Amino acid sequence: MHSTTLGNLFSNVPEHLPDELFETLLKQGGIEIERIVSKGYATPENQWYDQSWDEWVLLLQGRATLSYQDEANPMHLKPGDYLLIPAHRRHRVEWTDPVLETIWIAIHWR
Amino acid sequence: MHSTTLGNLFSNVPEHLPDELFETLLKQGGIEIERIVSKGYATPENQWYDQSWDEWVLLLQGRATLSYQDEANPMHLKPGDYLLIPAHRRHRVEWTDPVLETIWIAIHWR
Repeated sequence: MHSTTLGNLFSNVPEHLPDELFETLLKQGGIEIERIVSKGYATPENQWYDQSWDEWVLLLQGRATLSYQDEANPMHLKPGDYLLIPAHRRHRVEWTDPVLETIWIAIHWR
Repeated sequence: MHSTTLGNLFSNVPEHLPDELFETLLKQGGIEIERIVSKGYATPENQWYDQSWDEWVLLLQGRATLSYQDEANPMHLKPGDYLLIPAHRRHRVEWTDPVLETIWIAIHWR
């Protein structure tokens, strides 16, 4: 008989966070599922993420503001919000909640 | 200039649900991300799901009890709980919350 241990996305959040904490939850067959935790974080000024693969993100706790370089208005994300960030679409994190940890999952595939 | 619309996992839950409501949020490059909503649902008695591919599931709202055929104890899932259901590991939903809709995401890849 097996015994399965469940993971929980809201558990094991360290009290002292680096700027952004990235943890791989699953990496298998070309897919990677990551948890990202941050508090009061912004991408350094004038810096943009530019990835060579698509990424799907889902915010689970906290709040965040995300910008695309080619879009006038930033996006304000609350729990449950998700979006696909296409490859090479330059984006940055403008803000995350300074009080409550913001928890995301990000899914990458090739 | 683009304008991005965010999806939200807690939105657009119909008042009258079928047994389980499956919706594809993203299907691209061999990956599929689904939202599953159910209320007071159980897999029909003596019936097991047997899939030929791995599946990763995350419960976001509600509660659920899941069983593996080869495991003595069922698993009780609360929001934030996730697990990998390996291909061909027979499993069933024993119970979901009868009051609050249970909302999951399921990720499939080949």
